[in-house]
Amino acid sequence: MSRQGILIVVSGFSGAGKGTIMKELLGKYEQYALSISATTRAPRPGEREGVEYFFKSREAFEQMITKGELIEYACYVNNYYGTPKAYVEKKLKEGQDVILEIEIQGARKIKEQFPDAVLLFVTTKDAATLKERLKKRGTEELQVIEQRLSRAVQESEGVEEYDYLVINDDLNTCVDQIHAIIESEHQKTKRNREKIEKIREELKDFSKGV
Amino acid sequence: MSRQGILIVVSGFSGAGKGTIMKELLGKYEQYALSISATTRAPRPGEREGVEYFFKSREAFEQMITKGELIEYACYVNNYYGTPKAYVEKKLKEGQDVILEIEIQGARKIKEQFPDAVLLFVTTKDAATLKERLKKRGTEELQVIEQRLSRAVQESEGVEEYDYLVINDDLNTCVDQIHAIIESEHQKTKRNREKIEKIREELKDFSKGV
Repeated sequence: MSRQGILIVVSGFSGAGKGTIMKELLGKYEQYALSISATTRAPRPGEREGVEYFFKSREAFEQMITKGELIEYACYVNNYYGTPKAYVEKKLKEGQDVILEIEIQGARKIKEQFPDAVLLFVTTKDAATLKERLKKRGTEELQVIEQRLSRAVQESEGVEEYDYLVINDDLNTCVDQIHAIIESEHQKTKRNREKIEKIREELKDFSKGV
Repeated sequence: MSRQGILIVVSGFSGAGKGTIMKELLGKYEQYALSISATTRAPRPGEREGVEYFFKSREAFEQMITKGELIEYACYVNNYYGTPKAYVEKKLKEGQDVILEIEIQGARKIKEQFPDAVLLFVTTKDAATLKERLKKRGTEELQVIEQRLSRAVQESEGVEEYDYLVINDDLNTCVDQIHAIIESEHQKTKRNREKIEKIREELKDFSKGV
């Protein structure tokens, strides 16, 4: 009766620090696994098959679509990116909590197919902080920052569809909060039906004679 | 925009240690308040009005029922016991998380009137442990233990109606888990609508000009 993994969807504003949070979370706790995407994009130097991505030809990727082997997929800059169902389900069965870093359209598709998935939205404590973080990256022009903030406005429209709001003010606090949320989710009665049934049966036996 | 308190219902098998857990939780964190019941029972030595109970005449209690001033009530051994709505709502508004230790019939009534209430069910890790704890109390006859186990069988039928299953194996772990569950509940998007709306408005302003 080992516990089943939870599928965790993480979205958030660009600049809210999702990447850093994921890195910390995965480094700190062994129970988490990052979902590996399939893509038709060519591997960049150092990228390894089955580690950063599952690299696919366009034909193979489209076959995965047809066969329903992807939970969700999207097309960016003429390349496909998608989440292979088999990998996610394997990890969940092994008891790993699988994290998917994905945008709202993808998040909706996940929730349809995995109603027990937990959806987290990461934000800075306010918009001023988000603007500051985007500016501090330094590499980007004002126009790009403005585009990202416009995009954040759009993204903010869907926040209520997520289960939890996570505020990344202090990184460690934020990572601990996400871990606490997932551990609490593991204690939901809907995720412990077998355990409840077992105690129920034991009690029935015991009450017949102490 | 101070946070609103959460109404927490705690039920569990007799012998699972609810009382001890509540005492620890309230001693450890200031954010929790225990709901105070109204009763027609006479005060016992040392019991204070508004601390252990709100003591009421039968007439006054029945008036509270008629006026809808009780969230739930029940009658035991010819005395009324009930949960005054006003006290609970006052504490919630003050930002306190209010704990109600109550049985399943009461828990159902709470959930009807406070759909955002969080329902916890406390159990030992298995039935054998529950039996042992009941036996160790020593004060009770075998027949009473048998009755309590039969009662636990009945109670176990309703566990799935609760939101979370809390296993009291180690007291401190259990108290920390309950606190983590409540803190995680505070991060639900449905409890942070104002905060989300605020960030949304700020982002709209910022995106108009960096």
